[in-house]
Amino acid sequence: MGQVEQALREQGAGHGELLAGDASATLEAGGKRLRPMLVLLCAGEEAGAEAVRAATAIELIHMATLVHDDVLDAAPLRRGRPTVAATSGRERATATGDLLFSRAFALLADAGDERAIELLSGASVALARGELAQRQDAYDTSIGERRYLERCRLKTAALFECACLLGRDEPALGAFGASIGLAFQLLDDVLDVAGPPERTGQARGTDLLDGTVTLPLILAAGKDEAIRDADLRDLDAAGAERLCARIEATGALRLVRSQALEMVAEGKRSLTGPGFDAERRRLFDLLADGVVQRYS
Amino acid sequence: MGQVEQALREQGAGHGELLAGDASATLEAGGKRLRPMLVLLCAGEEAGAEAVRAATAIELIHMATLVHDDVLDAAPLRRGRPTVAATSGRERATATGDLLFSRAFALLADAGDERAIELLSGASVALARGELAQRQDAYDTSIGERRYLERCRLKTAALFECACLLGRDEPALGAFGASIGLAFQLLDDVLDVAGPPERTGQARGTDLLDGTVTLPLILAAGKDEAIRDADLRDLDAAGAERLCARIEATGALRLVRSQALEMVAEGKRSLTGPGFDAERRRLFDLLADGVVQRYS
Repeated sequence: MGQVEQALREQGAGHGELLAGDASATLEAGGKRLRPMLVLLCAGEEAGAEAVRAATAIELIHMATLVHDDVLDAAPLRRGRPTVAATSGRERATATGDLLFSRAFALLADAGDERAIELLSGASVALARGELAQRQDAYDTSIGERRYLERCRLKTAALFECACLLGRDEPALGAFGASIGLAFQLLDDVLDVAGPPERTGQARGTDLLDGTVTLPLILAAGKDEAIRDADLRDLDAAGAERLCARIEATGALRLVRSQALEMVAEGKRSLTGPGFDAERRRLFDLLADGVVQRYS
Repeated sequence: MGQVEQALREQGAGHGELLAGDASATLEAGGKRLRPMLVLLCAGEEAGAEAVRAATAIELIHMATLVHDDVLDAAPLRRGRPTVAATSGRERATATGDLLFSRAFALLADAGDERAIELLSGASVALARGELAQRQDAYDTSIGERRYLERCRLKTAALFECACLLGRDEPALGAFGASIGLAFQLLDDVLDVAGPPERTGQARGTDLLDGTVTLPLILAAGKDEAIRDADLRDLDAAGAERLCARIEATGALRLVRSQALEMVAEGKRSLTGPGFDAERRRLFDLLADGVVQRYS
């Protein structure tokens, strides 16, 4: 991971003044680095330059999408730091996102790493399709669980799956990544309704205000007619807060959380083949639990 | 070119309802298709599936940047049709741009076309850097000709050069593409000040209003102190119109136009090696003249 961090820093520094401000700030702001960790973990002990490169590239793609998201949401902060959109304006932030995106492919292309390019471009298509699907579904409370899960697969699970397969070409690892990624998204959506436990009082329901229909709302709507009839377009912050409380009261958050935990368990089970000794499994379990822990 | 058009249509259609509206509209809206034409022209008579694929991919990248530009400029129309940003909102337009971008690399990766991926990812990096540079330079009237030309190289010429090299790995072709691309950008910048001849009365000076300092302004500022002291941040549409007239009065547009024509001539001269017979040169001359003609 030290080498990945170094490579990410170089991505920013290599383009001189142009990137010194914007992309570097993004790249160095840190974050959980879950996707690169999955790459390296799956690559295992013989992880070399190729794995470090793939880990760097996938984080570049992830960051490109974060920068674009922050432009669209006009978000002032991410990870406690000002966003590129906030400090440099949407124009420069959009170009910064495009640059990070391009750099990911350039990095792999320079090394002639064809398999990684194919995996990552496929995952990037899925990611963009997932974003598109989410924007298309906005404010549509008739969205069902199946459509929601399909969106999560595109928007989140595909990149987690890709991370694992970048590390090693082994279907069981891909299945593990997809399960963990799906659980990650579900738990993120629970968090938006529950409110982050460490910061009570913070506004919750930002998804609802965006018109993003997530599983907590879908399940809660099946139990409470008033939730089913809510018009997200009419919501203000106080209304979102009230709707969150109402969703929580239906027990939907517990249901979604346990569905996510079941996905994590399923992910772990996909690693019980002969190639996975106890030691190796323990590492994967740790990482899977780390994903969950953030939300517990 | 028929096959390229077909492939572009498939890019939209292949993703079902998600793209049926947004990307397809963009892809089918047409445009000059200059970059794909350069690919095919450089590939020559033996142009096959590989050239068609590369031509499709480069147009996808070009369109991705147009869609993102329209988001940033909140442009209502492009090529006489409503932009994705206008019909579907900035969120969906940004995701559509990302998707077109990803599809370009996925298309080449599926075919294992490593050389094309390397060329196109490099050009995409240049493109994003050029956009970034332009946004960073915004409203800075101390920008000189050298910096301006460097920006044009990144923003425009790199993709033209890439198109030629995608067609065939021959340095002379790359030099031709870079010259034509640079000329293209200069003439585009002249057009913004001169106003399109076919639509008199249309607002001109949109670059000035954006704070984009281009060569006509740079050269005019050297001759007219009032232009040098103008503050672009204070401009309104009428002020931009007056500034355009003032720039034109200095003779700067003629200077830039002749500089562009000289670049085109230089581009043509780079094709006079033994590999270029009269017939082949004539085709390249036609294309180069086509680029110029649009502006004459």
